[in-house]
Amino acid sequence: MSEIVGATSILVAAEYLSNVFDGKGLMLGGITGVPPTEIVILGAGTVGEYAARTAISLGAQVKVFDPSIYKLRRLQNNIGTRIFTSVVQPILLEKAITTCDVAIGAIRAEDGRSPCIVSETTVSHMKPNSVIIDVSIDQGGCFETSQVTNHTHPVFRKYDVIHYCVPNIASRVARTATYALTNIFTPILLDIGENGGLKNVVWQKAGVRNAVYIYQGHLTNKHIGERFNIPCKDLDLLIVSHH
Amino acid sequence: MSEIVGATSILVAAEYLSNVFDGKGLMLGGITGVPPTEIVILGAGTVGEYAARTAISLGAQVKVFDPSIYKLRRLQNNIGTRIFTSVVQPILLEKAITTCDVAIGAIRAEDGRSPCIVSETTVSHMKPNSVIIDVSIDQGGCFETSQVTNHTHPVFRKYDVIHYCVPNIASRVARTATYALTNIFTPILLDIGENGGLKNVVWQKAGVRNAVYIYQGHLTNKHIGERFNIPCKDLDLLIVSHH
Amino acid sequence: MSEIVGATSILVAAEYLSNVFDGKGLMLGGITGVPPTEIVILGAGTVGEYAARTAISLGAQVKVFDPSIYKLRRLQNNIGTRIFTSVVQPILLEKAITTCDVAIGAIRAEDGRSPCIVSETTVSHMKPNSVIIDVSIDQGGCFETSQVTNHTHPVFRKYDVIHYCVPNIASRVARTATYALTNIFTPILLDIGENGGLKNVVWQKAGVRNAVYIYQGHLTNKHIGERFNIPCKDLDLLIVSHH
Amino acid sequence: MSEIVGATSILVAAEYLSNVFDGKGLMLGGITGVPPTEIVILGAGTVGEYAARTAISLGAQVKVFDPSIYKLRRLQNNIGTRIFTSVVQPILLEKAITTCDVAIGAIRAEDGRSPCIVSETTVSHMKPNSVIIDVSIDQGGCFETSQVTNHTHPVFRKYDVIHYCVPNIASRVARTATYALTNIFTPILLDIGENGGLKNVVWQKAGVRNAVYIYQGHLTNKHIGERFNIPCKDLDLLIVSHH
Amino acid sequence: MSEIVGATSILVAAEYLSNVFDGKGLMLGGITGVPPTEIVILGAGTVGEYAARTAISLGAQVKVFDPSIYKLRRLQNNIGTRIFTSVVQPILLEKAITTCDVAIGAIRAEDGRSPCIVSETTVSHMKPNSVIIDVSIDQGGCFETSQVTNHTHPVFRKYDVIHYCVPNIASRVARTATYALTNIFTPILLDIGENGGLKNVVWQKAGVRNAVYIYQGHLTNKHIGERFNIPCKDLDLLIVSHH
Amino acid sequence: MSEIVGATSILVAAEYLSNVFDGKGLMLGGITGVPPTEIVILGAGTVGEYAARTAISLGAQVKVFDPSIYKLRRLQNNIGTRIFTSVVQPILLEKAITTCDVAIGAIRAEDGRSPCIVSETTVSHMKPNSVIIDVSIDQGGCFETSQVTNHTHPVFRKYDVIHYCVPNIASRVARTATYALTNIFTPILLDIGENGGLKNVVWQKAGVRNAVYIYQGHLTNKHIGERFNIPCKDLDLLIVSHH
Repeated sequence: MSEIVGATSILVAAEYLSNVFDGKGLMLGGITGVPPTEIVILGAGTVGEYAARTAISLGAQVKVFDPSIYKLRRLQNNIGTRIFTSVVQPILLEKAITTCDVAIGAIRAEDGRSPCIVSETTVSHMKPNSVIIDVSIDQGGCFETSQVTNHTHPVFRKYDVIHYCVPNIASRVARTATYALTNIFTPILLDIGENGGLKNVVWQKAGVRNAVYIYQGHLTNKHIGERFNIPCKDLDLLIVSHH
Repeated sequence: MSEIVGATSILVAAEYLSNVFDGKGLMLGGITGVPPTEIVILGAGTVGEYAARTAISLGAQVKVFDPSIYKLRRLQNNIGTRIFTSVVQPILLEKAITTCDVAIGAIRAEDGRSPCIVSETTVSHMKPNSVIIDVSIDQGGCFETSQVTNHTHPVFRKYDVIHYCVPNIASRVARTATYALTNIFTPILLDIGENGGLKNVVWQKAGVRNAVYIYQGHLTNKHIGERFNIPCKDLDLLIVSHH
Repeated sequence: MSEIVGATSILVAAEYLSNVFDGKGLMLGGITGVPPTEIVILGAGTVGEYAARTAISLGAQVKVFDPSIYKLRRLQNNIGTRIFTSVVQPILLEKAITTCDVAIGAIRAEDGRSPCIVSETTVSHMKPNSVIIDVSIDQGGCFETSQVTNHTHPVFRKYDVIHYCVPNIASRVARTATYALTNIFTPILLDIGENGGLKNVVWQKAGVRNAVYIYQGHLTNKHIGERFNIPCKDLDLLIVSHH
Repeated sequence: MSEIVGATSILVAAEYLSNVFDGKGLMLGGITGVPPTEIVILGAGTVGEYAARTAISLGAQVKVFDPSIYKLRRLQNNIGTRIFTSVVQPILLEKAITTCDVAIGAIRAEDGRSPCIVSETTVSHMKPNSVIIDVSIDQGGCFETSQVTNHTHPVFRKYDVIHYCVPNIASRVARTATYALTNIFTPILLDIGENGGLKNVVWQKAGVRNAVYIYQGHLTNKHIGERFNIPCKDLDLLIVSHH
Repeated sequence: MSEIVGATSILVAAEYLSNVFDGKGLMLGGITGVPPTEIVILGAGTVGEYAARTAISLGAQVKVFDPSIYKLRRLQNNIGTRIFTSVVQPILLEKAITTCDVAIGAIRAEDGRSPCIVSETTVSHMKPNSVIIDVSIDQGGCFETSQVTNHTHPVFRKYDVIHYCVPNIASRVARTATYALTNIFTPILLDIGENGGLKNVVWQKAGVRNAVYIYQGHLTNKHIGERFNIPCKDLDLLIVSHH
Repeated sequence: MSEIVGATSILVAAEYLSNVFDGKGLMLGGITGVPPTEIVILGAGTVGEYAARTAISLGAQVKVFDPSIYKLRRLQNNIGTRIFTSVVQPILLEKAITTCDVAIGAIRAEDGRSPCIVSETTVSHMKPNSVIIDVSIDQGGCFETSQVTNHTHPVFRKYDVIHYCVPNIASRVARTATYALTNIFTPILLDIGENGGLKNVVWQKAGVRNAVYIYQGHLTNKHIGERFNIPCKDLDLLIVSHH
């Protein structure tokens, strides 16, 4: 899924840079003799990697920032051609954000909430009509000015910067996304069918166990239980007791 | 300009393949494990070359058709990676068109009118919701079903195929297009300024002479004269007589 | 070894596509203006990866199928340029097989027998003179029509499809294969020499233990024991008892 | 056609390097940890370029020699990755030939006869079982030891070096070659049909005129006339007199 | 020769960026997680192209400026990967120069003197310890602050910017340069030897005629004649009269 | 750090190949028509990989030797383009060393001392003015003739071979090296700050524990203790007892 989200985010940026939605009138990429579009990508995970790949292949200049040198190294290795990568240094980052045409927010939080690493002040200094695509909006977003939007009204303007903050960006290409999910789920479902039902598979495979939210009528996910104040049972104990 | 038109046509195709405008819901390009989008490009000139480059770089499968083996060879050489190229063989072409997701028409006419190489019957056999971008619409178009549209209503559907036939596709990215034109015109204008005015430059340079439509109040372009029935004078004679 | 087998399988396909052995008279790869050869590769392991690399580098169009999305992703990542990859979907697969020029079977079985994923019916619909190279024939083969052949009579025809089913394809390039094996065995033998003989190495290294078929006069491989009905001892117990 | 000949010559070399025809048992290309095959290509024209492209893409180490620095530069530019290129310096060339596994002769003569640039002595110092593919044999060959062979007995051995000297190497892939020729001849034939017959086209186009050997019953090619002692008329005069 | 000069200029820049000569202590190129070195190249001719190729391959970020959009397009096409190219726009250029680490001057003059396109003021705003390599110094230089230096004292500092202005940069790699010149001159000398002496060759070949400065004791180069006030004869007339 | 060392070693080699320090006068890389520089790299770790990448990108011909086939495979996979790789076979290695222009020693020892794999005899047969860069000199060096040098007198000549044996090669580009170290240490220091001081981090993270040489006044590194005969305590016990 992250492959889709990363690549699609750049295609969305291309639309909002063009004139169609009152954008800058720039072609994402650029042609010989005209300085290329500058794109800053926050996050060097799979989303960031595929956003970077797509942007580079269209001819844009890309700068990738991530707190982790190891993620940057993996991204650099996977992409092949050498690009601008940097750990998150506030001064460098601010300079990059305020001179770019497009900024993509794609830092995944380990504990459920994206770190907000670009302040409202920095956004207010961005060039007019530049574009922010905050892919990590479903975890709170990387930009202080981000607010959830939807596919009907996908963007709003703040400080004359176009914000695109639709949480489920992959549903723009619903069919491709469906194929992608099918490829992941089919082997699991076949596995359940061939190995004696869900009960056995949950018993045998820890990976499947992590994905169970309700089992035998009992909520088993602790985070949801805490948020909505519903009593929650431990899945491992449930399985053992039913086996 | 053709670089811009070629690259932009693929970005437009990406929009109309997605769900946003009731398209197929496909991501142009595609991801691992999902068969990639198929794009047929008619024409191996600069527009076709940049459309092919952009489509390949996004991960789509590209087939390029052109009547001329020499243009195909130049395109193949410029692009570097080997792709599917074929001279226009009716059977191969029809099979390619009826199984593709996107068809780009980009054959420039030498004598002012694009050859209509895809019949209405072929279009009627295309897959539902597939996309036609007819870039050569300003010369009549490569598809029998093409009809001029504009940036306000850019598409129409026929045989359930989305047709995008805006003649001036480059105006979607007006600023980039302006830069590109500036790069070409500035040296000519500087030349005129430094070499004693338009008169001298027209006198000295055959290239500039070809671009003159009206000179000293007289129409000098034969084609326009014929079409609109206006008397037309020969530029060379005019220049000589005024010099 | 799998590198050699993968690359060699494509060179063999090139021979049988040419006229030399009454093949189609096609050049594997193809040239500008002529549609390239289509090659379907079943299996995204090392053999499949090197077959794909070689075919792509020669200019052929490649489609890789594998049951596992994760193997496809690794192959896609290693190869670099984006290619057609798909999980095994029967309809897509059948269409790909019946329109291709060459099909390579390279699915390794986890439990000793390759899954036969292409039926006799599908093979009977393949184009005349197309070529099947079933690399996994030593585990039973991926095609229902495959039957073991040898280097003296390497091919047979069925439904006018050329079948190449030599189990030990690497012996075509015996010298290269020898170097490759030497590179793998030499460090193991040196290790045995430097660390006090085979006994000690078998005792210390689980990896070496897996490769022992006979130890101290006793058969220790369970599968062979079952197939040929020979009594078989457990290696671990043997080692402990002799130590 | 030269594209086909160049690429095919490397595939032929791969066959004769393998064990199938009692060759060295080497895989053209090679795998990690095993020194790659060394291929020397004489000639940096189209044949040499496509031989080099194919050999590189298979992983071989390639050295290209040509008398002209300009042809080498064009080849280097077209291929993209930097390779070993050298003008023909006798000492360097001899060292390269005597240490390589495969030597391809592909120097086109400007005046009808290939320069024989590798002496019999040098061939006699080549490694046993190495392979010579003399593509320019139809113009006399680049190697002193070359003698015309045919598709039935394509090779002979001299000084334990395998010589493949079939003049019409492209007929190994007859169908691909036919497509290629069709792509070149069809537009000419269409041109003749649309522009009032052969007479008019010969009259108008110097390019077609060069390809005419017999016109109105008279031999018009001077070289053939001299070689076979047949009276020969000047085509230009014939055309003018018949027009 | 321009290939050598372009590539060598980047290697020289690498030395003066390092600590060895009290430079910035930067590695030309850069590594993952550290922003790469920025290099501005003035001129998109062969020198500029090879400087750009070398800098890109080392991992630096490159911006190429040239007055001509056509030269930029050729460079872009030859290099393959898309880079920042721009026609010479004063504002963009000044910004690029004042933020870069290395600036290479490589604009060839058509009429014998390089246009000085970077003013002393701009140089004075460059970052401390940045490096200027003015390859076009033999034609006057692209930077207002450039002054000829030599291989013994190759650099001077002005405004704390290191200036390397050795006219004959290729003599740093004298042996490679000699080979390169040999490759160009040998065929000409052979030609003279085989075609009846210099007299005949000068008579037959316009290209050689352009390179003749003195003929039969008479100066024949107009520019040198004017600069040093020596009477000069027209070569064409001399040849005709002696023939 | 190894990325820096690998890339820098090639730039140093380029300097000593040029005329500046009385070298061969060769350009590392080379140009069309001139055989490229040959570089032998011993070691396929990170240093070797980045040396190989840099050398290839400059256009040199590279041969990489390493005792381990697995390291060679990883290097081959990371680099992308196929290069000459070989396990350490004495005959092949000696031939490669005695014909190359530059030899880089970059084999890391697992137990603290690099294996000396090139004998004094082999060095004495190297071509005059060839260059040895022994990066592994801090562990004793890969060449029998290597002796530690420093940045003031970085090279010495033996058997007319230039030896560059500065242990801390990265300090040539001190600023880049500092950034690189900062990127690695900052997260560790932040971690210490946020997680209750060094004590807690040492307690929790085995990785940090490995890097501790002195703890609470006691030496905790066994190797140093043995070499300098200082009593040494076990860190794990120290931590447990203080916790």
